[in-house]
Amino acid sequence: MSVLIVGSTALDSVKTPQREIPCLLGGSASHAAVAASFFAPVKLVGIVGDDFPRRYVRLYRRHGIDLEGLQKAPGKTFHWAGEYEINMNNRRTLSTELGVFETFSPNLPEAYRLTPFVLLANIAPALQHHVLNQVRRPRFVIADTMDLWLNIALDDLLKLLRRIDALVLNDSEARQLTKENNTVAAAKKIHRLGPKYVVVKKGEHGALLSAPGGMFISPAYPLNRVVDPTGAGDSFAGGLIGYLAVSKGALEANLRQGMIYGSVLASFCCEGFGLTRTTRVTREEIERRVLQLERMVRH
Amino acid sequence: MSVLIVGSTALDSVKTPQREIPCLLGGSASHAAVAASFFAPVKLVGIVGDDFPRRYVRLYRRHGIDLEGLQKAPGKTFHWAGEYEINMNNRRTLSTELGVFETFSPNLPEAYRLTPFVLLANIAPALQHHVLNQVRRPRFVIADTMDLWLNIALDDLLKLLRRIDALVLNDSEARQLTKENNTVAAAKKIHRLGPKYVVVKKGEHGALLSAPGGMFISPAYPLNRVVDPTGAGDSFAGGLIGYLAVSKGALEANLRQGMIYGSVLASFCCEGFGLTRTTRVTREEIERRVLQLERMVRH
Repeated sequence: MSVLIVGSTALDSVKTPQREIPCLLGGSASHAAVAASFFAPVKLVGIVGDDFPRRYVRLYRRHGIDLEGLQKAPGKTFHWAGEYEINMNNRRTLSTELGVFETFSPNLPEAYRLTPFVLLANIAPALQHHVLNQVRRPRFVIADTMDLWLNIALDDLLKLLRRIDALVLNDSEARQLTKENNTVAAAKKIHRLGPKYVVVKKGEHGALLSAPGGMFISPAYPLNRVVDPTGAGDSFAGGLIGYLAVSKGALEANLRQGMIYGSVLASFCCEGFGLTRTTRVTREEIERRVLQLERMVRH
Repeated sequence: MSVLIVGSTALDSVKTPQREIPCLLGGSASHAAVAASFFAPVKLVGIVGDDFPRRYVRLYRRHGIDLEGLQKAPGKTFHWAGEYEINMNNRRTLSTELGVFETFSPNLPEAYRLTPFVLLANIAPALQHHVLNQVRRPRFVIADTMDLWLNIALDDLLKLLRRIDALVLNDSEARQLTKENNTVAAAKKIHRLGPKYVVVKKGEHGALLSAPGGMFISPAYPLNRVVDPTGAGDSFAGGLIGYLAVSKGALEANLRQGMIYGSVLASFCCEGFGLTRTTRVTREEIERRVLQLERMVRH
């Protein structure tokens, strides 16, 4: 079954202690869509400006991503610039230019409205609502978010939490949302806000699922070297929903397995700037790394 | 088979945002010995002053810990005082008084010298050497350490690394020791300094084993509430070596399983001040939590 993904479609400038790369294909929806495309057909909802390189449109297409919902508007593509510290964990946003995203209010193509799996990747909660309003009885909805929306659009976000099946967020965001210092307690508290499933991302330390069947801990794939972690969390969410959309059987077991796939996609994402590594990955490499990761928790 | 444990035997004063408790039984050897005692007979090497409460001697005895190597000297017991921040991860040492530890130079009882499993719990590397010198052909030696020794006794520590089978240390210490920003790369680099097995502790994020057979990732048992994490790392190391000492079969498989036991002992440690929770734990509770933790990584 197919996956609808809405989020930012952006151009990123990333600075690490080693290098500085401008004009990378970025944005939450780009990362999530490419990650999901290894498993399921993806329908993308986003907007780009007239400066959006044609090679990135071709990149989406190579991954079989449906672009009927990708609007092109006069003006500048959303642009994010950020810098990583030497440890590659702390990052600083240097600039954010919304560009054509400022007034984006998509009208979903008819073919999109029956998509059973929906990922509301990180973007303003109002836009996540707007897209979700247009989908008819989706089977499973995951939303991702970030600290910015907790700070400036908390009401919209809280309303969204009552409409989704699963929330994906960072550990620091989970603590901020619940005013709880303990991450595990924070995850459990979020259920009361709506979502039946809560996935807490912990970067290099993996991710935690809190669900009716209990907790699940997915380790991160241990990397010797992180080139650029931008989009790792989006790749995780994309891999997760992509895997879910094509899996039969018990939902919670699929969610657990999907988190392993998500972690593996996130690990590939970190091995190159922007999407440069992920777009070169093969399904065989993904499966190999999934097996490796599964072996690392077995004794 | 039995385990020899040397390290600090101390009185701790712990301050958390909730409470302040003076005169707790603490020290790396105390935490490790109690944790190991659930699995194997333990021989303790340490020193206490004439202020050491008799109830703590009785506590050791209740755990069947051999105290022939616990010296009593005139003067004050080693005393550590520390304070935790609201998130329970960051801690600040308020004071350290070495007391009788200042001149401690133990002469091992004859019965201790043939102990097959040795844990050199966190203490000055010179003292770890001194004890190891007196053990005849040990079967497996684990050493724990801390940032303090990296700063003030690096040469002694580097020499020790060439004499042990496994090193246990925190992620920040692994990075400091190797001048490597990436934790996985740091773990791998430590092998070149001597130890065949490297265990990197990551607190609430679990622990990582780097070994000839590959990496193993042990999650931490997810706790809703951390009362006092003092001694959690020592409990982990104690549980690990205690489990190893009584396990047959392949060493590396036992190390992996032992890390799960170590994580579980660490989780109990965090649920009470000092050793108050760990000393009340039953073997059945330990086994139950091990099964739960194993289920949390299975899908």
